Amino acid sequence: MKFTVSKTRLYSALSVVSRAVSANSPIPALSGIKIDAEDDRLILTGSNSDISIRINVRTDGDNDPDIQEKGSIVIDSKYLTDIVRKMDAEKIDVEIIDGTLTRFAGNKAEFKINGFRSSEYPEIDFSVPGVSINMNAGKLASILESTAFAASVKETRPVLTGVNLNSRNGRVIATATDSFRLARTVFEGTDADFSITVPSRSLNEAKAIFSDTSKDLLIHLDTKKIQFTTDDVILQSRLLDGSYPETERLIPHEFKHELVIDKRSLIGTIDRASLMKNENMTVIRMQMKEGTDVMISNRAQEIGEFNEPVPAVSYHGAPLDISFAANYAMDALRAVDSPNVLIRFTGEMKPLIITNEAGEESILQLILPIRTYN
Amino acid sequence: MKFTVSKTRLYSALSVVSRAVSANSPIPALSGIKIDAEDDRLILTGSNSDISIRINVRTDGDNDPDIQEKGSIVIDSKYLTDIVRKMDAEKIDVEIIDGTLTRFAGNKAEFKINGFRSSEYPEIDFSVPGVSINMNAGKLASILESTAFAASVKETRPVLTGVNLNSRNGRVIATATDSFRLARTVFEGTDADFSITVPSRSLNEAKAIFSDTSKDLLIHLDTKKIQFTTDDVILQSRLLDGSYPETERLIPHEFKHELVIDKRSLIGTIDRASLMKNENMTVIRMQMKEGTDVMISNRAQEIGEFNEPVPAVSYHGAPLDISFAANYAMDALRAVDSPNVLIRFTGEMKPLIITNEAGEESILQLILPIRTYN
Repeated sequence: MKFTVSKTRLYSALSVVSRAVSANSPIPALSGIKIDAEDDRLILTGSNSDISIRINVRTDGDNDPDIQEKGSIVIDSKYLTDIVRKMDAEKIDVEIIDGTLTRFAGNKAEFKINGFRSSEYPEIDFSVPGVSINMNAGKLASILESTAFAASVKETRPVLTGVNLNSRNGRVIATATDSFRLARTVFEGTDADFSITVPSRSLNEAKAIFSDTSKDLLIHLDTKKIQFTTDDVILQSRLLDGSYPETERLIPHEFKHELVIDKRSLIGTIDRASLMKNENMTVIRMQMKEGTDVMISNRAQEIGEFNEPVPAVSYHGAPLDISFAANYAMDALRAVDSPNVLIRFTGEMKPLIITNEAGEESILQLILPIRTYN
Repeated sequence: MKFTVSKTRLYSALSVVSRAVSANSPIPALSGIKIDAEDDRLILTGSNSDISIRINVRTDGDNDPDIQEKGSIVIDSKYLTDIVRKMDAEKIDVEIIDGTLTRFAGNKAEFKINGFRSSEYPEIDFSVPGVSINMNAGKLASILESTAFAASVKETRPVLTGVNLNSRNGRVIATATDSFRLARTVFEGTDADFSITVPSRSLNEAKAIFSDTSKDLLIHLDTKKIQFTTDDVILQSRLLDGSYPETERLIPHEFKHELVIDKRSLIGTIDRASLMKNENMTVIRMQMKEGTDVMISNRAQEIGEFNEPVPAVSYHGAPLDISFAANYAMDALRAVDSPNVLIRFTGEMKPLIITNEAGEESILQLILPIRTYN
């Protein structure tokens, strides 16, 4: 294997591929990045078994990369990325010089690194699954921003650590829940029906890697895996096993209290209220009555208390006194993309629903209240 | 106690004073900031016993702060700083409302926080020690940047965790060493003779707090403490006990090999060489010979090797093959403020000295080589 490649093209590909690599893999070769030099391209592959990334670096009109001899090697991801980053050269020469000993040279600096044979690297199946969805990267990012945060961070019910994508009649419902709150986004998708659950971490990697929100992505999926692809990049993730809970029935559709309020003011007040912490969780209290400001308060044993009135745009219903986790409320409010939000309640211990002011459920946030003894 | 103060003035004072406070103090009140409201000023005090900071916030022409009632209270530093930062108000009203319960209000938000009585706060002696030195803040920063990094981070010999200031005949020598390397800066000071050792952490705090490098500072010191002061800010630190080692005799004055080399190129090469790590420390090898480039190399068992020639501006002496810690070399090179550096050697296992190209010892860096078996 022997080739010359521009530092910038190699480095930008490595910085993406290396995101899939975890330093402490039970399979030693998986701590590396696989480099395949083919006739007209380099193929870089990184994987941690759950997530795999493959990038083509195709030979361009300036003959970059210039492949002088085909071949394949696996080089430790951390060393490889650091070496290329710190090379003070426009072009980097790469060559297997003896067995797995590989030379990286640029300007006058020369690294000789012991790699792994490609035969030690697991075969990763990048075959394309059957169902396809076209999606703009910006759209993917906004779907994730309004759902993925609500997934569970605890491994007790693994399926809750992902985002469920449920497709029926051309509509996809993306749902995340940790069983104390739920976030849901609905978008136009594909005619195929499916229900799959994608690990949140994979989705966040997809968002990070396809950060150019103007780009169009092609998503491919089946019951085993999902792929996010552009022309030269494939991010592939396994899916979470287990059936996702039926969340539809948890969402109330009749309400007794309706509040419209300025989102930024409410977030600012809850943020201040969160300073008074009881143990790890901050529970804040919200008191509402027709014709008055909404009162946000919080009391922390031995530390002190907080009170702030926030003007309501409108409130309809009997007086209500309800408490909930401050961080859940802030996450949910931030996820709704409108200056005023509509918050609907059915009672002190019933889920509350946050949507945009018009009550559209394309982005819907649900939070369970917390019982307190004020 | 009752006063109104602008958020920005209070916050900027708190963000400085809070630097001296450590969250886990054996004296509970020391986790707080003491607020004294006097006729014409607020006085804020923070301390962790080793370092103490006091700031005057004087009433200005706009009657800010407006002291309505004198008094004193101690409020937890973390809460106080966060509350003031998150207040969405230009002015903040502060008032003791019941015993130690203190009200902070701004716009419509209201915090009531339980504080400590001022009587529980230790008396801190801010009396001014006898010896004075005038110094520009920028000068202080540059003295510290070329010395403080070389102090020890291990507590086995506490006196080595500080920077020694030794004043004789109007010249102050600032020295830091961890016994494997030494950094020294000489500057014009005062007629008084002294030798004190200031904790590195205190010096770094002084540098951070007096970050406006155009300002003039007044430094006061005696054998017990040192103060860095401007009109309204005092940073005071205790000194380290124990006699500082006689470092003068460690510095060689006759040399057998002299290398002049471009500093940035050498740092770049050593930085690349450091990628090949053996355990925690990276030892690099430097080979010199008249009329050839300097060869920097590094070999890490099982990982690989690195080689890069760096052109010398000049080299005089017999061929030399010497090894040293890469990070020590980079620290020392960065501390010398000239494009070319002069590195002088007396032998493979003797200290090497780095200065500017002219060999001026106002900034001098010493490194002990490391024995290797290449």
